[in-house]
Amino acid sequence: MAKSVKHILSKGSGLKVNGSLWIENKGERFFGPGPVELLEFIAETGSISKAAKKMKMSYKKAWEMVNKINAQATTPVVIVQSGGEKGGGSILTEEARQLIEYYRVLRERFTAFLNTETGRLKTS
Amino acid sequence: MAKSVKHILSKGSGLKVNGSLWIENKGERFFGPGPVELLEFIAETGSISKAAKKMKMSYKKAWEMVNKINAQATTPVVIVQSGGEKGGGSILTEEARQLIEYYRVLRERFTAFLNTETGRLKTS
Repeated sequence: MAKSVKHILSKGSGLKVNGSLWIENKGERFFGPGPVELLEFIAETGSISKAAKKMKMSYKKAWEMVNKINAQATTPVVIVQSGGEKGGGSILTEEARQLIEYYRVLRERFTAFLNTETGRLKTS
Repeated sequence: MAKSVKHILSKGSGLKVNGSLWIENKGERFFGPGPVELLEFIAETGSISKAAKKMKMSYKKAWEMVNKINAQATTPVVIVQSGGEKGGGSILTEEARQLIEYYRVLRERFTAFLNTETGRLKTS
């Protein structure tokens, strides 16, 4: 009789089904754990530049991430205030906060899915 | 009143919630779409070296992938037959086929989850 997956992988008491989740448009990813973290740091620091540093990410990459999200939204989710590269600062719109909240709840449902699958892996 | 996520992202007729799924042990990933594809190519070609080429992956990386899976399994999932780097060939055990089948069914349930979430994103 065929062995169960649990028995094939029975070495692993730390076995877990895990994954990542993102939103894409026509195959292009623009929202997921990275962008969420970046937006949260922008909210915290009021600056794309400071947020990029906290993420150990280049300023250019952080800008591209913000632009990608803005390009998918009906209105910008990050508002960049004038003042040059160092000054000015950036703020999140209410829409950005709603996207973050949406992702948090989505991720909760995904965690429930992963927990169910981890349980299934360990018992079946 | 707060806009719905659908309205925040309403530009996207191609919007989709997507993701990836893997199995890890104590945080170390060892099974997912890449390893599944590699195992399938090993089954098809009878050779880790040929399978690596099909995946445009170095022989070394393919070996490491196979070793990682073997290390997590109670018995090896790929049996390497003697004959040196070019000869000999490799075969999948029944356990490897069961792991592939398990991942296929797991991925089906994940696809259902993603479809539900994509539907929810577009209507809520």
